[in-house]
Amino acid sequence: MPNYDHHVFICTNERGPDASRPSCGHEKSKAFKGLLKDAAKKAGLKGRVRVQETGCLDQCEHAPVVVVYPEAVWYGFVGKKDLVEIVEQHLVGGKPVERLRLPESCINNEHCPHREKK
Amino acid sequence: MPNYDHHVFICTNERGPDASRPSCGHEKSKAFKGLLKDAAKKAGLKGRVRVQETGCLDQCEHAPVVVVYPEAVWYGFVGKKDLVEIVEQHLVGGKPVERLRLPESCINNEHCPHREKK
Repeated sequence: MPNYDHHVFICTNERGPDASRPSCGHEKSKAFKGLLKDAAKKAGLKGRVRVQETGCLDQCEHAPVVVVYPEAVWYGFVGKKDLVEIVEQHLVGGKPVERLRLPESCINNEHCPHREKK
Repeated sequence: MPNYDHHVFICTNERGPDASRPSCGHEKSKAFKGLLKDAAKKAGLKGRVRVQETGCLDQCEHAPVVVVYPEAVWYGFVGKKDLVEIVEQHLVGGKPVERLRLPESCINNEHCPHREKK
């Protein structure tokens, strides 16, 4: 069974209390990682999908952030109730959850409307 | 500038001293992350390529391991001297470094020849 059908990365970075940008680790992302893993396992995806934490994905103003490869689908402002939907609709069904998806204009763009001017 | 041309993940997981599997964090991968970032920046890829650490990629017997998305190219047994080659040939030139690439038969396969039987 080579490679993964989907490789899911969730940022768990925590910035210090005086940081100027928010961080996913303060938005429950560590717990979300476990919930995503459990949901994927329950959906029968063990070995076909890998869910894991990463350092900062640099999309901090959309925390908590998840990116799914190889399709490069970015999710932002993910809530606990969204996790099962991501697993069932996207990882099982192959259809990204459009309502959670970050638009291209938000990704890797310092002029994104969510990003405060420094 | 939406999305990244390449998103590079390097495992920096460290297992405990009695672990039955090796780990990338013991193979200098934390330092390698910084070297990869520096090489990418020097190559003019800032903003187009992101290099970051991850938790365990579960390909431990090939440590240190790097995976590049969206093309899902896996590198194993990466050495310090290989890092600039990955940046220049793959991230700049678009051609994966075949000599470092893990074969599909090694990825996500517990019967991979590098993996000791438990």
